[in-house]
Amino acid sequence: MTRVMDRRRITRYRLDGAASHREDRLAGEEPLEIRLGGRAFSVTMRTPGDDFDLVAGFLVSEGVVAEPGEILALRYCAGVDEEGRQTFNVVEAQLRPDVALPDTSMERHVYTSSSCGICGTASIDAVRKSARFEVHDDDGTVKLSVLASLPDRLRTSQKLFDRTGGVHAAGLFSREGELLCLREDVGRHNAVDKVVGWALRRGMLPLRGMILQVSGRASFELVQKAHLAGIPTLAAVSAPSSLAAELAEESGITLVGFSRGRTLNCYTHPRRIEADPSPE
Amino acid sequence: MTRVMDRRRITRYRLDGAASHREDRLAGEEPLEIRLGGRAFSVTMRTPGDDFDLVAGFLVSEGVVAEPGEILALRYCAGVDEEGRQTFNVVEAQLRPDVALPDTSMERHVYTSSSCGICGTASIDAVRKSARFEVHDDDGTVKLSVLASLPDRLRTSQKLFDRTGGVHAAGLFSREGELLCLREDVGRHNAVDKVVGWALRRGMLPLRGMILQVSGRASFELVQKAHLAGIPTLAAVSAPSSLAAELAEESGITLVGFSRGRTLNCYTHPRRIEADPSPE
Repeated sequence: MTRVMDRRRITRYRLDGAASHREDRLAGEEPLEIRLGGRAFSVTMRTPGDDFDLVAGFLVSEGVVAEPGEILALRYCAGVDEEGRQTFNVVEAQLRPDVALPDTSMERHVYTSSSCGICGTASIDAVRKSARFEVHDDDGTVKLSVLASLPDRLRTSQKLFDRTGGVHAAGLFSREGELLCLREDVGRHNAVDKVVGWALRRGMLPLRGMILQVSGRASFELVQKAHLAGIPTLAAVSAPSSLAAELAEESGITLVGFSRGRTLNCYTHPRRIEADPSPE
Repeated sequence: MTRVMDRRRITRYRLDGAASHREDRLAGEEPLEIRLGGRAFSVTMRTPGDDFDLVAGFLVSEGVVAEPGEILALRYCAGVDEEGRQTFNVVEAQLRPDVALPDTSMERHVYTSSSCGICGTASIDAVRKSARFEVHDDDGTVKLSVLASLPDRLRTSQKLFDRTGGVHAAGLFSREGELLCLREDVGRHNAVDKVVGWALRRGMLPLRGMILQVSGRASFELVQKAHLAGIPTLAAVSAPSSLAAELAEESGITLVGFSRGRTLNCYTHPRRIEADPSPE
């Protein structure tokens, strides 16, 4: 057993036959506690692996950091579980002293009923992070044939999915269609955070001109993650949500959905897609 | 435009032809702020609709309540957005005075480095909620032919998916295969919370003998939600994660994955599945 994948004896049923027993492989899922300044900041359920990239990307997505120098160190907390094993499930991030720690108290969202006139916007504000990178002025384009090929390129590179059928993927591609970084995780947000953290730690942010291809749907939060990493084009195999499209419109992000090989839908800023009807 | 669904003008590309413009329908996504005792407890991105069920189910999933009398009232906070519209995006739950408010401070997860020997287990504990209902002793069984038919029954009842292609679904079924409650949401956790909240508010918890069928994968958190609602059988169309199977084993839940009509996999407690190879 690896922590990325687990094996389990299961019962397989066929409607037209007898039940049989076999071994099945399951995608690993364990909690990761992220600590800042010695205090717990967040706990996320993730597939173990690339944990430092995950933490770095999570800090980008939370609007805490945007350049590698803002993270001084990442290390596993030396703790053991009941059986005395190091769990590698707690990561401490040491930030540069001038980096403002995020307020985790929820107090910022609290209003008494007497001042409740602002609670509608407060609620939207609560989920919006301010981005340090401007995407509107990113003129990077991508050929339609390249963009349409990315889901297949992502899929054929997914090793964990092949073995478990149970993980999401996120891939960072150049405008020529070169796969720069692929990450798989039981959580689709984690897969994106791992890619963004990988790029942050290499000093690559903002990811101007690049394309983030994800295996599932495009939610508000995925668009926000793209924006915070300075990625101009986000493409999803499935549907985007209404708020994902709204935020993409506002942030200057080209949002693509239902990218299915022969066809794709562009919801916002189609100017970055170069139609090339004749195959190369 | 409805809030459950949005319309948007998009550009549709075909690899072999010119781009065209058309109107597309997107699943609604808006933040919902949940307040307890006048304070923000959580913000979740959800498809608007059945918000009181969502809040009630969320409170069950967080281990805060387990019977309807513990929630005295649910109401929208009277707030307006910048354009003066009521947003219906903030719900206040009034709990019975003896119900303990959850600790949202994260302080409970915080340990200094000197006492870090327990951080491995602390991190797992941080995601575990204690369930009030015992599932191990639930003897409710389901016929294989009924269980295998649930994904189709769920799918054919999904109205929002038909229109947007972009939502998850959760359905509560009796052991005879009767659909009792179906909910769709951009967030798969929300779809389950809406179903559980619907049942809580009707005084139906624990949901002994019933089956929860979900459209996607089975994560640790979905198994935990089933446990907290006292549901003995959780069936997913796609893969479960390793920790989902571990928790199901431990909680006494029958966990089914890759439920694809003609075949399905049972990961834990197959005793609740009655094999009936000859079709009824």
